[in-house]
Amino acid sequence: MKAVNRPTILDLEKATGFSRGTISRAFNNRSEVSAKSREIIVRKAKEIGYVPNPRARSLSLGTTGRWGLLLPHLRNPFHADLMECLDVEAQRRHTLLLVGLSHHDHDHEMRLMHHWASGETDGIIIAQLIQNIDPQVFELIRSGQFPAVFLYGRPSSECDMVRTETTISYERAMNHLLNSGHQRIAYLGLDYCGDPINFVVYKKILAEAQIPLDQRLIRFCSNDSVSVSHALAEWLDLENPPTAVLCFNDIVACWLIHMGRSRGLRIPEDLSIIGGDDIAEAGRIGLTTIRTDASLIAQGVFDLLDHPRKEGEPGRVCSVLSDMITRDTVAPPRNIR
Amino acid sequence: MKAVNRPTILDLEKATGFSRGTISRAFNNRSEVSAKSREIIVRKAKEIGYVPNPRARSLSLGTTGRWGLLLPHLRNPFHADLMECLDVEAQRRHTLLLVGLSHHDHDHEMRLMHHWASGETDGIIIAQLIQNIDPQVFELIRSGQFPAVFLYGRPSSECDMVRTETTISYERAMNHLLNSGHQRIAYLGLDYCGDPINFVVYKKILAEAQIPLDQRLIRFCSNDSVSVSHALAEWLDLENPPTAVLCFNDIVACWLIHMGRSRGLRIPEDLSIIGGDDIAEAGRIGLTTIRTDASLIAQGVFDLLDHPRKEGEPGRVCSVLSDMITRDTVAPPRNIR
Repeated sequence: MKAVNRPTILDLEKATGFSRGTISRAFNNRSEVSAKSREIIVRKAKEIGYVPNPRARSLSLGTTGRWGLLLPHLRNPFHADLMECLDVEAQRRHTLLLVGLSHHDHDHEMRLMHHWASGETDGIIIAQLIQNIDPQVFELIRSGQFPAVFLYGRPSSECDMVRTETTISYERAMNHLLNSGHQRIAYLGLDYCGDPINFVVYKKILAEAQIPLDQRLIRFCSNDSVSVSHALAEWLDLENPPTAVLCFNDIVACWLIHMGRSRGLRIPEDLSIIGGDDIAEAGRIGLTTIRTDASLIAQGVFDLLDHPRKEGEPGRVCSVLSDMITRDTVAPPRNIR
Repeated sequence: MKAVNRPTILDLEKATGFSRGTISRAFNNRSEVSAKSREIIVRKAKEIGYVPNPRARSLSLGTTGRWGLLLPHLRNPFHADLMECLDVEAQRRHTLLLVGLSHHDHDHEMRLMHHWASGETDGIIIAQLIQNIDPQVFELIRSGQFPAVFLYGRPSSECDMVRTETTISYERAMNHLLNSGHQRIAYLGLDYCGDPINFVVYKKILAEAQIPLDQRLIRFCSNDSVSVSHALAEWLDLENPPTAVLCFNDIVACWLIHMGRSRGLRIPEDLSIIGGDDIAEAGRIGLTTIRTDASLIAQGVFDLLDHPRKEGEPGRVCSVLSDMITRDTVAPPRNIR
C-alpha cells in the first residue's frame, strides 16, 4: 500500500514560522498555545492541505488524537443524534472519533474497549450500560491512565460521568398530567431497562398526589408494535382505562400514538401521551416529550476527557439538565371537559 | 499511556497449535484458511481473550484490518441504518469500521480520505456524493492500490460502485398510483438533490400515460416542516389540486402526512402519499414506500473491497434491487370512489 505524498509538519513549519512543538501542541488543543497562534496554524494547515498524522502524533506526544465511542446500536435515533454531536465536538477540538457499535454483544464490547485501551485511542466514551467491565481496562481507567467517560451509570465512583438530569423534567411532566386533570395515568416501559428515572418519578409523584399505584396500569413492552399494541388492548379492556400514559421513550410513545389511532382513539382527546428523548419523529408527530441537548452532553464529555483525572482523585460528574417540550399530545381527560 | 497486557498471538499459537501465519490469515479472512480451522482459531481466541492487534497486522501483512466509511451525517435514519449494517458486516469479516461524518464540509471530507488513504485503513466506502475528489487519493483508487467503493455516483468508470436499483420499484409505485385512478400526481423533491431517479421515473411514467407535465405539481423543498407546508398550501390553492404525491424520501413524506392531517386532510382518502427509504418511522405511520435492504448493500460493498480491482481493469458495479412496500397511504382518489 503506497501512502499518499501529503504535506508534512515541516511544510507547515515553513509556512507559519512556528516550531514543530508549537504546531503539535496547537493540534492537540493544549493550553500553552494562544488561541491566536492556534488559529493561524489551523488556517495555514488548511491552506496547504496539512493533516496532523495521528501515528506521528502518537510517537511524538504519546497521544493519538483519537477517541473511542462505544454505542449499543443506531436503531434509536437518539443514539445517532448523540454520535453526530460527539463527532462535531471531536472535530471542533481537532481530534477524530472512532465509533464502535456493540450490538449488546458483551464479547464485542470487551474487544473494542481492549483495542482502544491498547494505544489506539487517548480515551473512551461509553454510551451504554456496561456489565462486568474488563478488569485490565477498568484498572487503567480507575488509575487515571486511560481517560473514560461513562454516560449511563458508572462502574465505580472513581469513574468520570456525564449524567443527563431528567428527574425535574419528568416531575414537571407528571405534574402537567395531574394539573390537566388526569388521575388514571399509566406507565409504558421497556422490558430490559430495569428501574429507569422516569418510572421512579412516576411512582413518586403519584404517591405525593395520594393516588394509589394500580399495577394494571404499569406495562413493560419490547421496542415493537406487537407488545405496545398488547399493552394498549389490556388497558382499553379495563373498566376504568387510563386517560394518560407516561412512556419510557419517544419510540414507544410513537408506537402508542399510531396503535391508539388505528383503534380509533383520538390523541390527545381520548388519551394523553408523553415521551422522552425528542427524536425528529417526535417533532413531526407533535409529541410532548423530555429533551436533553446532545451537544451539551458532547461538550461535557470532551471537557472531562481533555482534563484527565489523577489517580486517587474521585470520579467527576457533569450534569446536563433536560427540558420538557410541550407539544400537542396532552389535553384534559374527557370526563372533566 | 500504558498498554493493556493482553494475550498475544504466541498464546494463541500455543492454545490452537496453528502457526502464526495461519492465525493471521484466519483473522484476515483469507481463502487459504479452511472454514473449520478459522472457526477453531476464532473460538479459541475468544476463550483466551486474544484480539488481533491492527498495528501488528499492519506491520506483518501490510493491512490494517480497518475500513473507512464516509457518511454526510446521521440526521436521516437511512444513513444510520446503512452504517449499522456496514458495521455488522465488517464485524462478521473480523475487521473494524471507522466512520467519519463529513457534514458536507468539503475540506473535512478530503482530510478524512487523505487520513484513511495514508495507511490508516485498507480501503474506503464513500456513502455520499463527492465533488472534486483529491487527485492523489483518486490516483491511488484508480490504480487499484487503495480499494474504494462508491455508493452514490462514482467519479469515473474506473471506480467500483454499489448501486441501489430503484427504477423498477418507482415505476411500480407510479403505476400503482395510476392504476388506483390518480391522474393529478404531484412530485415533492429536495432542493439539493438534482435530478434523482424517482423524479426521472415520475416524468417518464406520466409521459407514457400521456398525462402532460404540470409544473405547478412539482415542488422542491428543504428537509423541514416550513417548506413542505408551503408546497402543500400552494397545491391546495389550485383549482384542481393533486390527489397523490410521490415524495423524494420518507422524511419528506412523513412531514407531508403530518402537515396534511393538521390541515384536516385524511390520508389516504384525500391525498395518497408514497415515500422512499423505509425508515422506522415509515413502518409506524403506515407509509407505502420503496425499500432497499441495507444489509445487501453492505455485503456487496465488502465483497468488492475483499477482492480489489487491478490497475487497468474497469470499475465494477454491484446492483442491489429495491422493493415497493405497500402499506396504508395509497387509496383511489375521491372523485372515482
